[in-house]
Amino acid sequence: MKRLSLLGSTGSIGRSTLDVVDAHPDELRVAALAGGRNVERLASQAAKHRPELVAVADEAAGRALAQRVPKGTRVVHGRDGLIEAARLAGADMVVCGLVGAVGIEPTYAAVDAGKDIALANKEALVAAGAFVIRRAAETGAAILPVDSEHNALHQCLRGEDPAEVAAIWLTASGGPFRTWSREAMAAATPEQALAHPTWTMGRKITIDSATLMNKGLEVIEARWLFGVGPDRIRVVVHPGSVVHALVELVDGSWKAQLGAADMRHPIQYALTYPRRLPAPVARFDPARVAPLAFEPVDADRFPCVGLAYEALEHGGAAPAVLNAANEVAVEAFLAGRAGFFDIPAAVRAALDRHAGLPAGTLDDILAADRLARASASEALAIGVKP
Amino acid sequence: MKRLSLLGSTGSIGRSTLDVVDAHPDELRVAALAGGRNVERLASQAAKHRPELVAVADEAAGRALAQRVPKGTRVVHGRDGLIEAARLAGADMVVCGLVGAVGIEPTYAAVDAGKDIALANKEALVAAGAFVIRRAAETGAAILPVDSEHNALHQCLRGEDPAEVAAIWLTASGGPFRTWSREAMAAATPEQALAHPTWTMGRKITIDSATLMNKGLEVIEARWLFGVGPDRIRVVVHPGSVVHALVELVDGSWKAQLGAADMRHPIQYALTYPRRLPAPVARFDPARVAPLAFEPVDADRFPCVGLAYEALEHGGAAPAVLNAANEVAVEAFLAGRAGFFDIPAAVRAALDRHAGLPAGTLDDILAADRLARASASEALAIGVKP
Repeated sequence: MKRLSLLGSTGSIGRSTLDVVDAHPDELRVAALAGGRNVERLASQAAKHRPELVAVADEAAGRALAQRVPKGTRVVHGRDGLIEAARLAGADMVVCGLVGAVGIEPTYAAVDAGKDIALANKEALVAAGAFVIRRAAETGAAILPVDSEHNALHQCLRGEDPAEVAAIWLTASGGPFRTWSREAMAAATPEQALAHPTWTMGRKITIDSATLMNKGLEVIEARWLFGVGPDRIRVVVHPGSVVHALVELVDGSWKAQLGAADMRHPIQYALTYPRRLPAPVARFDPARVAPLAFEPVDADRFPCVGLAYEALEHGGAAPAVLNAANEVAVEAFLAGRAGFFDIPAAVRAALDRHAGLPAGTLDDILAADRLARASASEALAIGVKP
Repeated sequence: MKRLSLLGSTGSIGRSTLDVVDAHPDELRVAALAGGRNVERLASQAAKHRPELVAVADEAAGRALAQRVPKGTRVVHGRDGLIEAARLAGADMVVCGLVGAVGIEPTYAAVDAGKDIALANKEALVAAGAFVIRRAAETGAAILPVDSEHNALHQCLRGEDPAEVAAIWLTASGGPFRTWSREAMAAATPEQALAHPTWTMGRKITIDSATLMNKGLEVIEARWLFGVGPDRIRVVVHPGSVVHALVELVDGSWKAQLGAADMRHPIQYALTYPRRLPAPVARFDPARVAPLAFEPVDADRFPCVGLAYEALEHGGAAPAVLNAANEVAVEAFLAGRAGFFDIPAAVRAALDRHAGLPAGTLDDILAADRLARASASEALAIGVKP
C-alpha cells in the first residue's frame, strides 16, 4: 500500500491521480490533499478519501473547509500548509500536480524529506532543477516524471545504458496553431489558443502548448531528469500525440513510447513504478489511429522553443527567468491584456534583463523568479513589440 | 574481441555481417565461414578475413576452394563440415544466416556446444523451437535474434518484466501485393513477387514476404524466442517498414523500435549485445520519413498468416510441416511451376496430411520435414487448387 500526498488535487492532474487511486484501492491510498480555493471539490475529495491532512490556499478557505472534512482530517493553509503536506511523515510518495512556480518550494521540500515524487509540475525542474536533482540524490528520493513526454522517455530508457543514448526526442502536438500563418497567430484569441487538438489539460499548460513554450520547458526539464545536455535533446512535431517521446541510440536504433493521450497512464506508471498494472485507460490499437506523422518545429512561428534552449545554454537563473516571465505573459494573454506574440516578446525582454542574476541558492532562484515577473509585467504594460 | 563462426557467409545476412565486422575490427573477428557453392565469393571472404575454417556445400566446391584459401585455413564440406563450423572451439558466437531448413541442425549443434548464437535462420525455431530453446537453456547459450522484427522486440523488452507484457506485435510491410486484388495476386509472376517495396533480402524470404508466410514463420519464432503464447502475438501491416515491432504492456503503454530498414543494424545489435556501438547505417530522422501507417492483415488475400497460427496452435511437428511445405512451394513458384496461391494450398495439403506426425525428437522433426516436402511436391505436381 503506497500512501500519497497529492499536491494540486483539484486540478487536472490531481483529479486524474484520484481516478488512478480509485482503480487500485489495494495499492494506493491518499494521505494528504492540497488544493487552492475550490473548497467544494476539496470537501468532496476529502469525504471520499479521508486523508490525514488537507492543505488549502488561505485561511478563509481553510475555515470554510474545516467544517466539511471527515473527523480526523486536519486542515492547514498557505505556503506552510503546502510544505507540510509535501513533507508529511504519513506519505510514501508526493504527487506534485501544482501548476506554475508555486510548485518549486513544495517539490524541493518533498525531495528534501526524502519522499519519492511523481512530478507533474514542470517549473520545479525548469527553475530549480540543479537544486532539486542534487538534493534528491543526497536524500535518495526518486523523481518519477508524470509529464507524458518525460514519462515516455523514462519508459524508453528502461534497460538502456545512458552512455549509449545519442539523443532524446520530445514530441510536440504542434497545438492549435500548427498550420496557421504567423499573421493569423498574431491575432489569435485565448479561446482559439485553448482549443487544443489532442490533449485535455489545464489552461496555463494549454496556452504553453499553443506557443510550444511547453516543449521548451520540457527540454529544460529533460535536461535535469535524464542528465542529458541540450545538444542531445531534440523536439519534433507529431500532430497525433500518439508517440509521446523517442530515444535515439548510438547504434542508430530508435525506441518510442506510444499510446492513448490520457494522463492517467503516465500518472499510474509513476505511482506504481517499477511495476505496471492494468490502467483505467481506453485500449490503444495502432491499426485504428491515423498514420503517425512527424515534422520539424517552425522556429519563426514558435520562437519559444529557441528561447528555452537559449535559457538552458545560459544556465544559472535564466531558466527561472524564462519560466516566470512566461507565466506572467500567459496570464496577460488569457486575460486579453496581451497578444499571442507578446508572450515570447515578454520572455525575451526578461531574459535580456535578468538571465545573469545570481543562482547560487534556491532563494536566489526565487528572487530571480520575482524580478522576472516584474520585468515581464512592465514590458507587457509598456507594450512589448514582437 | 568476439570470434564469430559465420554460417551462410555468401548470402545476404552473411555479407551484411561482414560489413559489421569491417566496421568494428577491434571488436569482432571471423573464425569460420560457411557457404554453399559460391567458391569465388568464399575465396575472397577467406582471403580478407583469414578464418581458421571454411565450410562449403560439397566435395567439389571444397576441392576448388582449397587451392584459394590462405595458409592455415582449413576447408571442410557437406553437412558434417557445417556442423563442425557450428561447434568450432575457436568461435565465441555463431551467426546463423543460413536460409531454410538446412539451418536447423547447425543451429541445434551450436547451442548444444554452448555457443551464443545470432540467429537469422527462422526455420530452426519454426521447426525445432522446443528443442533448440530447451537445449540452449541447458547449455547457457544465448539466442540473439537477427530478424529485424524479433531483434526489435528484444530491444523493446529490455528492462521490462515479461509478466507485464500484454502482447507482442510484429509489423509486416505487406509486401509487393499489399494493395493488389486477389485475382491479380493469383496471376502474379516471380518477378512481381520479388519486387519488395522496402527490404532487400534473399529470394526465398522475399517471396515469403509477398505471401506474408514470412510473418507467419515469425509468429512461431517469436513464440519460442520470447516464451509468449499465440494469443499474445499479433501481426499488423505497416507499409513503411520503419517500426520493426511493438510491445503492448499491461498498463496500456506501448513501446516500439524503429529505424532504417538495414539488416546491418539488427546484426550488429546481436553481435555486440548488451553493448550498443555506432553502426555502419544511414542516420534515421523521424521528420524525414513518410507518416507511419498501420493496417490489419487481410486474411483472405494472405492466408499464410492464419496457416502459421494454426500450425503453432496445433504444435508438435505441424510448424515443421508448414515450413517444409512452404519451402517446396516457394521453390516451385520461383521456378514457374506453381502459381502464387498454390503456395498456401500446398501448405494446407501438407498440414492436413502430416500435422499429427510424431515430434518427440529432433530426428522426428527432420523426418516430418522430409515427408512434408514430398507431400507438397506431390500436391504441386497434381495441381493443388487454392
